[in-house]
Amino acid sequence: MPVQTARRMNNVPRSFIREIFKVTDNPGMISFAGGLPSADFFPALEIRESCVKVIDEEGRSALQYSNTEGYAPLRGFISDRYRAKWGLEIDPDQILITTGSQQALDLIGKVFLDEGDTVLIERPGYLGAIQCFTSYGVRFVTVDLQEDGPDLDQLAEVLRREKPRVYYAVPNFQNPSGISFSAEKRKKIADMLSEANTLFVEDDPYGELRFIGSEIAPVRCHASENMLLLGSFSKIVAPAFRLGWVCAKPEWMHHLVTAKQACDLHTNSFAQRVVYRFLHDYSIDNHIAKIREAYGIRREAMLKAIGENFPANVHTTRPEGGMFLWPTFPEGTDTMALFDRAIERNVAFVPGAPFYVNNDPQGFRTMRLNYTCETPERIRDGIGRLAEALKTAI
Amino acid sequence: MPVQTARRMNNVPRSFIREIFKVTDNPGMISFAGGLPSADFFPALEIRESCVKVIDEEGRSALQYSNTEGYAPLRGFISDRYRAKWGLEIDPDQILITTGSQQALDLIGKVFLDEGDTVLIERPGYLGAIQCFTSYGVRFVTVDLQEDGPDLDQLAEVLRREKPRVYYAVPNFQNPSGISFSAEKRKKIADMLSEANTLFVEDDPYGELRFIGSEIAPVRCHASENMLLLGSFSKIVAPAFRLGWVCAKPEWMHHLVTAKQACDLHTNSFAQRVVYRFLHDYSIDNHIAKIREAYGIRREAMLKAIGENFPANVHTTRPEGGMFLWPTFPEGTDTMALFDRAIERNVAFVPGAPFYVNNDPQGFRTMRLNYTCETPERIRDGIGRLAEALKTAI
Repeated sequence: MPVQTARRMNNVPRSFIREIFKVTDNPGMISFAGGLPSADFFPALEIRESCVKVIDEEGRSALQYSNTEGYAPLRGFISDRYRAKWGLEIDPDQILITTGSQQALDLIGKVFLDEGDTVLIERPGYLGAIQCFTSYGVRFVTVDLQEDGPDLDQLAEVLRREKPRVYYAVPNFQNPSGISFSAEKRKKIADMLSEANTLFVEDDPYGELRFIGSEIAPVRCHASENMLLLGSFSKIVAPAFRLGWVCAKPEWMHHLVTAKQACDLHTNSFAQRVVYRFLHDYSIDNHIAKIREAYGIRREAMLKAIGENFPANVHTTRPEGGMFLWPTFPEGTDTMALFDRAIERNVAFVPGAPFYVNNDPQGFRTMRLNYTCETPERIRDGIGRLAEALKTAI
Repeated sequence: MPVQTARRMNNVPRSFIREIFKVTDNPGMISFAGGLPSADFFPALEIRESCVKVIDEEGRSALQYSNTEGYAPLRGFISDRYRAKWGLEIDPDQILITTGSQQALDLIGKVFLDEGDTVLIERPGYLGAIQCFTSYGVRFVTVDLQEDGPDLDQLAEVLRREKPRVYYAVPNFQNPSGISFSAEKRKKIADMLSEANTLFVEDDPYGELRFIGSEIAPVRCHASENMLLLGSFSKIVAPAFRLGWVCAKPEWMHHLVTAKQACDLHTNSFAQRVVYRFLHDYSIDNHIAKIREAYGIRREAMLKAIGENFPANVHTTRPEGGMFLWPTFPEGTDTMALFDRAIERNVAFVPGAPFYVNNDPQGFRTMRLNYTCETPERIRDGIGRLAEALKTAI
């Protein structure tokens, strides 16, 4: 008799994005579908050098089991950077290194979410968070995203009415919309949360990737209670290493560490040492500057091509950093059906639907476009092809 | 108002072993407490070379996001090795690379365990599995371990009466006892399971570390339905990389992959390439032969020192491989209290209690001794110190 799977697996969506990978492997395909940083800027030679130094200087001990919390110098680097950038004091002991920031979401689920709990998420919201929290049997409520962040009236109402256990947000260059919270809204959100019994999960994988305007301090700078701040090296160093982190006050660190022990004991400690070595020996700011410049050019190329090729009634976000644009099409559009027609023309994107919860119909008129992985030339070609596909669709 | 943690966190024990690390960092301490392989045999120079080759030959693509299932050549290597060693046919598509085999346990919990389910575990059992499955709110039942594996009468009775959802076992050189299942018991267990509606999780991190007698085929060789087989590179290459795997039939692979997407997207793909490169370019069998020889000498030194120093009424297992010995002391012993006296004498071990479930009093008369991380000289010294501590305790 075959063994049955657990109830929670009935509801977990398989990541549509990771499934799309299988279609986009074709080299003729122009893909705006990935959520990938451009491999053109991965510091391969510096990483090679860092691997060699770690082995030469730290020897076999760099290959042994390690502590769950993470490599102390790496946690120190993160702490120092928060202090230098924002005057934000986060002790290294309050930073847990995770196996990508995706693992931080899973640990948050494990530590804070009981079945039936309510999670507040942005509309649209990050697919990986939807997928992860769904596996904890939660119920989602949403707050609309405006050009400068969440609709605050709606947010106040939802916090009051739904009393969510967790409010998950990506305030910088959100995945999928590219939208950032204004400095003003960040302060107001911190104030609103101070009265709510809600854990604010501030996920910030893209904050360093700003190419227009000035960086804006995290919400965490305006509040410390009931806050978790997440970060990642995937977009500024390289994703293969799966290195992220979560900042948490000591009593929560205790629970997160216990949960992590049960999940994978610790994050690859050789990778932690290699990335620390890279950060120590080279200028991460110079490296980020190169990425920002290139991404800014690609984003500009995509916005220009959209302006020239898409119908005027398509509204597209104009992010000042990050990796994504988010067009919204007239009612009646079906971007899921458009996906197949686009693939026929060798161009890929991610339909909006998986970024929404509760079968929200808004998903059918939206799509996520990634501009970091194609050259400006291919971006122009790809948007042209997509416009062709659109003509048969709208 | 502070946010509360989820109910499941009330019951998850923090790993005592990982806490012990904090005490054993002192260099004067002789530690039998770790579950660590000896760093003396980590192939550091070969890993250095493999890192360089991966970057030189695969370039930046080795640093990009990758698929959830794992690096295809590494999965192929594992598949080939099962075929070569046991004639066991496991398609690479049915092998999921995990972030250490600890992650495989967590994924199994996520995919197969509902709150209130019954998990059958060995008595004593692997702490990491107890910790992990506890977080899924399960109830444990046990089967006693004899010198040649589980008590089969008890096993039949427990399977019939309790109908456990999962039966978790470590048939080779079990952690903590060092006990292995005989070939005969493996066949009988496969037969018994064929009639039960129970998922058998065969965890095999130590199988390659046999230094006496011949290797015994996994239970998985005698049955394919309702079976998951887990493996790990932590003990034969290096633990820092956190590389393990789980073999599962296609419909379960689908669920395990979905669960893994939500947990960490994929396992460090640079590490997967580096370890594959090492396995491809060097002889893993020669490498394992070196480890086996050294561990055999250390195990012998520990058994000899125990024979000379411990009272005759202490019974110790005589494992033919792996990393652990398991003394059982007369009734009335309290190895938890003994731990503090041992630390005063600069020798550490793991008390038996955390390897038992349901407050089993047997834990107080047992301890786990690891022999892989100290030289034979220090093993003799350490067992002498432990015998001194015992004199004040029994």
